[in-house]
Amino acid sequence: MDGTASPFRAPVVALDGPDKVTGAARYTFDVSLPGMLHAKVLRSPHAHARIRSIDPRRAETLPGVVAVVTGADAARLPDPYYGVAIRDQPVVAIDKVRYVGDMVAAVAAIDEETAYRALALIAVHYEKLPAVTTIDEALAEGAPLLFDTPVAGEPIKLGDGLISLKEPRPNVLCEFGYAHGDADAALAESDRVFEDRFHFSRINHFHLEPHVNVARVTGEQIELWSCNQDPFVLRSDIARIFGRPANNIRIHASYVGGGFGGKSFCKMEPLVVLLAMKAGRPVRLCLSLDESLLTLTKHAGILMLKTGVTKDGRLTARKSEIQLDGGAYSDASALTVVKTGYRITGPYRWDAVATRAYAVRTNTVPAGSFRGFGGTQASFASESQIDMIARRLGIDPHDFRCKNLLAPGEPFRPGDSGIDSDLAKGLDEVVERIGYRQRVRSSAQGHKARGMGLSIGIKDGGGTGNHAQALVKLYSSGRAIVSAAAVEIGQGATTTLSRIAAETLNLPLDWVRYGAIDTDLTPLDNGTHASCGTVVTGIAVMRAAADARAQVLEFASERLGCTAAELALDNWTVRRGNYAHPLAPMIAEHYGGAGFEFIGRGMVKVPNDPKAPLTAASLFWMPSWVGAEVEVDRETGKVQVVQLVVGADSGRSVNAIACRGQVEGAALQAFGQSLFEELRYNGAEPANATPLAYRVPLAGDLPERYESFVLEHGGPGPFGAKGIGESGMLGVAAAIANAIEDAVGVRVTQIPFTPERVLAAIEAAR
Amino acid sequence: MDGTASPFRAPVVALDGPDKVTGAARYTFDVSLPGMLHAKVLRSPHAHARIRSIDPRRAETLPGVVAVVTGADAARLPDPYYGVAIRDQPVVAIDKVRYVGDMVAAVAAIDEETAYRALALIAVHYEKLPAVTTIDEALAEGAPLLFDTPVAGEPIKLGDGLISLKEPRPNVLCEFGYAHGDADAALAESDRVFEDRFHFSRINHFHLEPHVNVARVTGEQIELWSCNQDPFVLRSDIARIFGRPANNIRIHASYVGGGFGGKSFCKMEPLVVLLAMKAGRPVRLCLSLDESLLTLTKHAGILMLKTGVTKDGRLTARKSEIQLDGGAYSDASALTVVKTGYRITGPYRWDAVATRAYAVRTNTVPAGSFRGFGGTQASFASESQIDMIARRLGIDPHDFRCKNLLAPGEPFRPGDSGIDSDLAKGLDEVVERIGYRQRVRSSAQGHKARGMGLSIGIKDGGGTGNHAQALVKLYSSGRAIVSAAAVEIGQGATTTLSRIAAETLNLPLDWVRYGAIDTDLTPLDNGTHASCGTVVTGIAVMRAAADARAQVLEFASERLGCTAAELALDNWTVRRGNYAHPLAPMIAEHYGGAGFEFIGRGMVKVPNDPKAPLTAASLFWMPSWVGAEVEVDRETGKVQVVQLVVGADSGRSVNAIACRGQVEGAALQAFGQSLFEELRYNGAEPANATPLAYRVPLAGDLPERYESFVLEHGGPGPFGAKGIGESGMLGVAAAIANAIEDAVGVRVTQIPFTPERVLAAIEAAR
Repeated sequence: MDGTASPFRAPVVALDGPDKVTGAARYTFDVSLPGMLHAKVLRSPHAHARIRSIDPRRAETLPGVVAVVTGADAARLPDPYYGVAIRDQPVVAIDKVRYVGDMVAAVAAIDEETAYRALALIAVHYEKLPAVTTIDEALAEGAPLLFDTPVAGEPIKLGDGLISLKEPRPNVLCEFGYAHGDADAALAESDRVFEDRFHFSRINHFHLEPHVNVARVTGEQIELWSCNQDPFVLRSDIARIFGRPANNIRIHASYVGGGFGGKSFCKMEPLVVLLAMKAGRPVRLCLSLDESLLTLTKHAGILMLKTGVTKDGRLTARKSEIQLDGGAYSDASALTVVKTGYRITGPYRWDAVATRAYAVRTNTVPAGSFRGFGGTQASFASESQIDMIARRLGIDPHDFRCKNLLAPGEPFRPGDSGIDSDLAKGLDEVVERIGYRQRVRSSAQGHKARGMGLSIGIKDGGGTGNHAQALVKLYSSGRAIVSAAAVEIGQGATTTLSRIAAETLNLPLDWVRYGAIDTDLTPLDNGTHASCGTVVTGIAVMRAAADARAQVLEFASERLGCTAAELALDNWTVRRGNYAHPLAPMIAEHYGGAGFEFIGRGMVKVPNDPKAPLTAASLFWMPSWVGAEVEVDRETGKVQVVQLVVGADSGRSVNAIACRGQVEGAALQAFGQSLFEELRYNGAEPANATPLAYRVPLAGDLPERYESFVLEHGGPGPFGAKGIGESGMLGVAAAIANAIEDAVGVRVTQIPFTPERVLAAIEAAR
Repeated sequence: MDGTASPFRAPVVALDGPDKVTGAARYTFDVSLPGMLHAKVLRSPHAHARIRSIDPRRAETLPGVVAVVTGADAARLPDPYYGVAIRDQPVVAIDKVRYVGDMVAAVAAIDEETAYRALALIAVHYEKLPAVTTIDEALAEGAPLLFDTPVAGEPIKLGDGLISLKEPRPNVLCEFGYAHGDADAALAESDRVFEDRFHFSRINHFHLEPHVNVARVTGEQIELWSCNQDPFVLRSDIARIFGRPANNIRIHASYVGGGFGGKSFCKMEPLVVLLAMKAGRPVRLCLSLDESLLTLTKHAGILMLKTGVTKDGRLTARKSEIQLDGGAYSDASALTVVKTGYRITGPYRWDAVATRAYAVRTNTVPAGSFRGFGGTQASFASESQIDMIARRLGIDPHDFRCKNLLAPGEPFRPGDSGIDSDLAKGLDEVVERIGYRQRVRSSAQGHKARGMGLSIGIKDGGGTGNHAQALVKLYSSGRAIVSAAAVEIGQGATTTLSRIAAETLNLPLDWVRYGAIDTDLTPLDNGTHASCGTVVTGIAVMRAAADARAQVLEFASERLGCTAAELALDNWTVRRGNYAHPLAPMIAEHYGGAGFEFIGRGMVKVPNDPKAPLTAASLFWMPSWVGAEVEVDRETGKVQVVQLVVGADSGRSVNAIACRGQVEGAALQAFGQSLFEELRYNGAEPANATPLAYRVPLAGDLPERYESFVLEHGGPGPFGAKGIGESGMLGVAAAIANAIEDAVGVRVTQIPFTPERVLAAIEAAR
């Protein structure tokens, strides 16, 4: 498809921009209810311990304290555990703590200071247990077990028994196996086989808005103002945990100040509800950034790849084993394992593949969703190894990739959908923009060396089986409210969805407003994740707008005595041939009073077969292309990124400036993770779980030249759009690693590429 | 229709009951926003004055004061006036004040005390003008004019030029003329013609929840938490006044603690918005009950009836002239004039009628909507005169009525709809229950005398041209949210509408919850008035539920491989022949994730021809029947009601206990107005505008025996229901006046029947 044919010619300023830059925008942080209490959480100082006793009485009697909640309260709940597919995390620790930072108790008091002081008065008697804090420790023979009894997930029907949700081995919480062709045979027949091992470190989401929730319980009704990205999923969890029907649970979502997956699914929300229930007053819990660091991480992991090639550089087969560190609780590990395993083969053509992926329990911060959802881990390993193999074979890494890339329309794997982009074209664009062909090979002169690296990332998008519903309320004046539950997490959903509705209704964009999200009144949406807002929620919105449009034309045709087919809608006027009939007076005349509202309804369900999701085709493909030029200081190991060029495919941009923003934001987040970010442990103790010690990129660290581009090869969303929220994350780490090897001839296989790691690699090669 | 066939066999406890009796229910009063300021209003001490100057500077500099708003601010608004049909009331006084209590300025400060103190620092220089405080003064030759330039209403197309909305005479704000047949000729041919004059006093709504509003202005968006009964009408007004599109106006409605029409249409809401806009912070204005008394009244009036009869007691014709005291601003006077004029003929058969009704401007509190909407004034005059004529003719008042009553199905007037009740049957029920036939005629013995009086009231219901829309969100679990904008003002809308949805969906009532009202998300409703909730909003809800049901059956038929027609819905199970298929697992399997919501959509428009609304048929009829037995103290004039029996027709009760409650509540309100309530003026000064001085009935004043009944003759609403919110108001005053004459042989023609008035009538007759 040709982007110039898009109805969205001009980029527009984000509709939520003015409120955000003037400070008028309201976040959950700003919610304040009459009589509201403030909560603080007591966290475990131990990585693994049994709670022998817990005495909240001194805390309860501190003036200003209204309620203290412990595991005893949680244990009385109808279902005190949460987690995606595998529900093993208690609302608050019930019998054991399983990582340093685990939630042991919580206090609601008249102010935060009082709540803090009360924490120190809660007497907890722990029996310390041996802990496992690395994958290897956890998998070792006779290792301490995090769960005395293995926790089985409910059957989530993820593919013909390919995923085990009941601990397949001690401390392994789930395992996913996936194959096509005979990988062993294909490897045996390959001219060369390469085995490499990559380490992905533990990374925090580092959203600047902390986790914040306000709960109010009134009789049977539970109301929650939450920064959660998935209000309807949260509604289901709260309903289940508290044993109440879902229509007594009401979730309000505001702007979210960054999520990146860290605010997906249930976290401390049930604890806030439990506090409000016990206190009989509204309760607000706002975590500190320190606590965010102890709430969720991206999966650290070890990725072992065994890849075969023919001597002329054709990829034949890949076997992989992926160990993800799930931390103490499952959270979204099961889904992440599936997606990492599925995406490990990259955008290439294979005779055969075989994957085993599993998540391992350790006494560390739980791991869960993170922008890219396993794709960044897979892409780092895969694109590093592809580059290594090219260099080993003496083939230019660009040419090696091109030889093996999936062609447009070629299925990602047999049975999946065809690639809806031109992967080679995107790579060529990077090559062109970064000057890859003109690069000067680094010489040994001086202590600084330059090199360039490329990579391609790809992930499926939209979420298999996902669905969304939407309403468009069209007022007598032609002004409209879009009611849908894609949460504005900074990705631009407000503007994108409004623009889709405005275009469908042929109205000025500023006539459309994106409504508040209130699960009682807003139509259901499966969640703001998987880059699905523009496509999934977008189709629901487009259909709702089209339904409203049809109603308007039907109404006008009755007034005008013609058929709806004779009419066109244009700026709240119906046109019939050369005649224009303004709608506002027509509606006022017919309905009088407060007017009328056309309510358009739309929905979409992403196809899947719940019994065999892996045979369902992916909704769309999210490729990205990265080129990095680095300068490596051989004496210090410091890597400076000189150029970073990142491109992705928006299908067709609904708002070009927002798509660029998504690509650049994602790539910069991946850039930080490639070079700086890592939540480190000293044994079982988090070593840098404070926002100052957790090193994120500073302004001076940024690439000297940073360029992005967006290709438009069409997609299944409204007006040819597709999701672009995650793709920029995918290839950055590998491109930088590849550039480092290009510069100094050594390979770093563990992110982040800190000076220490790079220097160690250089010294090891000397 | 037979009430025993109703699906609503058992009465149910109001769904909002538990929250209300435990104090958990939240009203607009309870809204508190971060940074919220509190407002107070400076009110005019003069009945009529020109504002020469106003200096807010001292108030503005008082510490804690954030904004002061005066007419200068209002004058800069795009359209600073409001009112129904005739927009003559400024957001705050601009050039003149027109009654004692008129809003002159307002202050927003950090607390109410500071705002109060600031009011005294606003320097206003008034030029006093002569005032008119009675209808006669206002109509006198050369009377002072309230408006220098007559204010013309926008054409509201109320019937073939029969209503004038531009001052037809000085100080007359509108006039309505209505006739059928040749009344003059019919009167000339009548055997007897009676002319009588009745006075209706000024009455306050006395809702215990004061008027309270909280406004927040964020950029382009205006948000208002309001106790208003008509959130969508309010939205239109705010949009027009502030010149903003309606989708930037968001109204939140909570439970309303009594309205009775006093919270219909725009009042002080725009002033609160203006304060919030100027202050740049949220502002709350909660009036005192003293201020409520100065905000709106029911129309006082003089009703002059000229009625002809044949000597055998057949009514022939009625000419009437109705003067309503509109007070200083029009508010809903134009509509009240129309409805009073139309309803003055009562439930009788006439050869000819002719009515002139008009509203007169006086320098008193504005008059507007009140439960019964002109029907109580009309009913008091008409049913008093009917009784007087019967007694003059020596015919039993019961028999005289029955001879002239409209028969079931007989149109109220040519072209209107037929009476959907059995008026004689209801009257007989009263006669039976009160023991009318067995009554002992009062003798002259002692100073106390007993008597009985009857009356019949009738009004059209549902609001001509009214309409409503609704959504029903049906969750995967079968739990449902009804989303509609009928405000819960204590009438039971929550329960009634939930029950209609539950019945339509064949679900338990407690599976349905009535959603919050948020004009951004809730479907439009023309307002909570005219007893239209059960019928108008009810039909919309029923249709929305039926639409959802159809979607469910369609979904199930696709899963089960049959047609929807083969299936029935029963307690969230679909039945096909002898097989039952639970829906929840069927939906979970198909949609997975957070499930799915069926969104049913419904709407209803009450037919009317906007060009000639009087030729449109009324949607339904609201009759009521009253019997009163009084004991009158001839020495003091004190009237004690010994028995009060009130019946009305619910069509078919959706919740019998709530219908009884409506009848009893309305009748008791009318009882208070008949005997006690009156907002009095001493010249231009309100004499008793405080809740202590304004006399409402006390527990000891109540009728010694109080009985209600509800007939069920069917109606156009869901399951045969019709509105019953106002009918109990209609006949009470006349029934008591008729009983007084029955007891002591004198006629009181002005409510309330205070001891002074009754004694004066007794003494005049001596």
